[in-house]
Amino acid sequence: MKRVYNFSAGPAVLPEEVLEQAASEMLCYKDTGISVMEMSHRSQDFKQIIEEAEADLRKLLKIPNNYKVLFLQGGATTQFSMIPMNLFRNKVADFINTGAWSKKAIAEAKRYGEVRIIASSEDDNFSYIPNLDNLKISEDADYVHIVQNNTIYGTRFTKLPDTHGKILVSDMSSNILSEPINVEDFGLIFAGAQKNIGPAGTTIVIIREDLITDQYLEHTPIMYKYKIHADKGSMYNTPPTYGIYICGLVFKHLLKTGGVEAIYQKNLKKANLIYDYLDKSKMFFGTVRKEDRSLMNVTFNTNSVELNNKFIEEAKNHKLVNIKGHRSVGGMRASIYNAMSYEGVKALVDFMQKFESENS
Amino acid sequence: MKRVYNFSAGPAVLPEEVLEQAASEMLCYKDTGISVMEMSHRSQDFKQIIEEAEADLRKLLKIPNNYKVLFLQGGATTQFSMIPMNLFRNKVADFINTGAWSKKAIAEAKRYGEVRIIASSEDDNFSYIPNLDNLKISEDADYVHIVQNNTIYGTRFTKLPDTHGKILVSDMSSNILSEPINVEDFGLIFAGAQKNIGPAGTTIVIIREDLITDQYLEHTPIMYKYKIHADKGSMYNTPPTYGIYICGLVFKHLLKTGGVEAIYQKNLKKANLIYDYLDKSKMFFGTVRKEDRSLMNVTFNTNSVELNNKFIEEAKNHKLVNIKGHRSVGGMRASIYNAMSYEGVKALVDFMQKFESENS
Repeated sequence: MKRVYNFSAGPAVLPEEVLEQAASEMLCYKDTGISVMEMSHRSQDFKQIIEEAEADLRKLLKIPNNYKVLFLQGGATTQFSMIPMNLFRNKVADFINTGAWSKKAIAEAKRYGEVRIIASSEDDNFSYIPNLDNLKISEDADYVHIVQNNTIYGTRFTKLPDTHGKILVSDMSSNILSEPINVEDFGLIFAGAQKNIGPAGTTIVIIREDLITDQYLEHTPIMYKYKIHADKGSMYNTPPTYGIYICGLVFKHLLKTGGVEAIYQKNLKKANLIYDYLDKSKMFFGTVRKEDRSLMNVTFNTNSVELNNKFIEEAKNHKLVNIKGHRSVGGMRASIYNAMSYEGVKALVDFMQKFESENS
Repeated sequence: MKRVYNFSAGPAVLPEEVLEQAASEMLCYKDTGISVMEMSHRSQDFKQIIEEAEADLRKLLKIPNNYKVLFLQGGATTQFSMIPMNLFRNKVADFINTGAWSKKAIAEAKRYGEVRIIASSEDDNFSYIPNLDNLKISEDADYVHIVQNNTIYGTRFTKLPDTHGKILVSDMSSNILSEPINVEDFGLIFAGAQKNIGPAGTTIVIIREDLITDQYLEHTPIMYKYKIHADKGSMYNTPPTYGIYICGLVFKHLLKTGGVEAIYQKNLKKANLIYDYLDKSKMFFGTVRKEDRSLMNVTFNTNSVELNNKFIEEAKNHKLVNIKGHRSVGGMRASIYNAMSYEGVKALVDFMQKFESENS
């Protein structure tokens, strides 16, 4: 079996230890004689799996007791509807528009009420995070929505907007657990698991209890009610049991290796390695304003499409895969999530240097 | 590693061959160097996985070309809202009420329009399928909804209602792929994967193309629009990739072992073995009217709660697990889905005989 360095933007690389454990337990979890996949979600064994997953995530992110942790389905796109359906009162939301996932969330929220874009970086193809000083937060806004790390464009909020007390909603799909956060800064955090946590099909929602009410927009489907899931411990219906199990293994792996602070230091080291090279390279350049660079998704380019294609092709021979950039940015993108090793980033940078010297 | 006979009602037993293959490919799928869990849903490798899964399911169920196959999330409960949101025109649905899952679907449909219960077996704790002759199908009904196999109560429709041309919607969560069906009898079929197909978190929808339109109830979330998923080949957003991969392995396994007709014969043989014993036992009895007995969920009882508890406990020592009945029926339930072997059912019946002779 060969393994490669997988820079996929998501679904993405997982810790090898986690995959090994999952493989070894596939036919028989502990002494149960069955696979986690075959396990009733009402069984004691699964109850322990989901409760430990939640407890471990709470430890990792220091989630206060007045926040609920939900394991849901449907990805971030489901949250784009679920959030207004649950939180709209005045039916007004303020958005900071930092890319494709902001725009999708905006389009969906608009179907339920009024959206005000209070800042945007669309004028320069979302290559920076807008200035957060003196934002015009709407007095009647039900919440302010940000995408804290932008997978496609490679930007990242390094500080949070002052929402003047309004609820801050953050899409952390591509940066959750990559750096320390203060959960109390947010009313609601959501993240598809498939970038930094586990398999696609599980979505994590962390929501302040007072936002969980019995008030919804008309026609809100039962599965779109946070209260239903919160009251039933994410088991109103059958949850994505195997996905939650893998998320739980990833949480345990993170705890064992030092938690969020340790992985943040590792992520900084990885990101610095590649950004430092980009800053001195004469062939490659980063596409994002320096102070807004993502720690998770490193977007870079050369001045030649031909060179890019050659680089992407030759990289595969060095076991460096999935580094083609998203079509809306072009060039290359190396997603270096928590589970990407320093060695993987080092191998990429070594190859970039080799390629540059061979092709200039 | 020991394996047990797992009679769980869902999530449920999967073919051992499938689990073995999944385990062996966990760190490296084919020659990719990555796990299916780590694979971009936009990659050629995943495209092949989902396309083969769909093609194999089409082969197994002989799905005509004018039906779409969708791989969705959210379980049957999501369908309870999605169906009226997409199909309501007159906002009227006829339901045959055969148990807990009918009732949940009814409660949800009522939030969007009018529900008429045209037949019910609630008067005898859902222990039979109502008479389907001379049903009063509503002239203005948008569709007629049935639950074709009732997991909790152990009943099964052995014929379909005449809907006078109205769209028939069938919840096949616990009987899909267990017996031959004529897809053209239905407008829409849905099934959570976690009973007869694969892991929880994937839902199969088979829908006739003319029912996929641009017309929805107000506030229908984007993820609740069949057209969005149909137009994008179930990839509008990241689908539950690993779950779909496992479903695909199960489909291949079924094809290899003779398809739906072969598994149906095996299922009949398994069900007959246990029902024949129940009919001659002086201690155990089936809880369902004979002609309506499920091939998938065998509900049975004794006249003593103490005896039931003793039976369930001692069964575990014979590697027979998860046979406690649902609280709304009591007694025992053996779910004998496709992946339950004849040997498993034989072991259960042998133990029942032994238990009866020792305890009478």
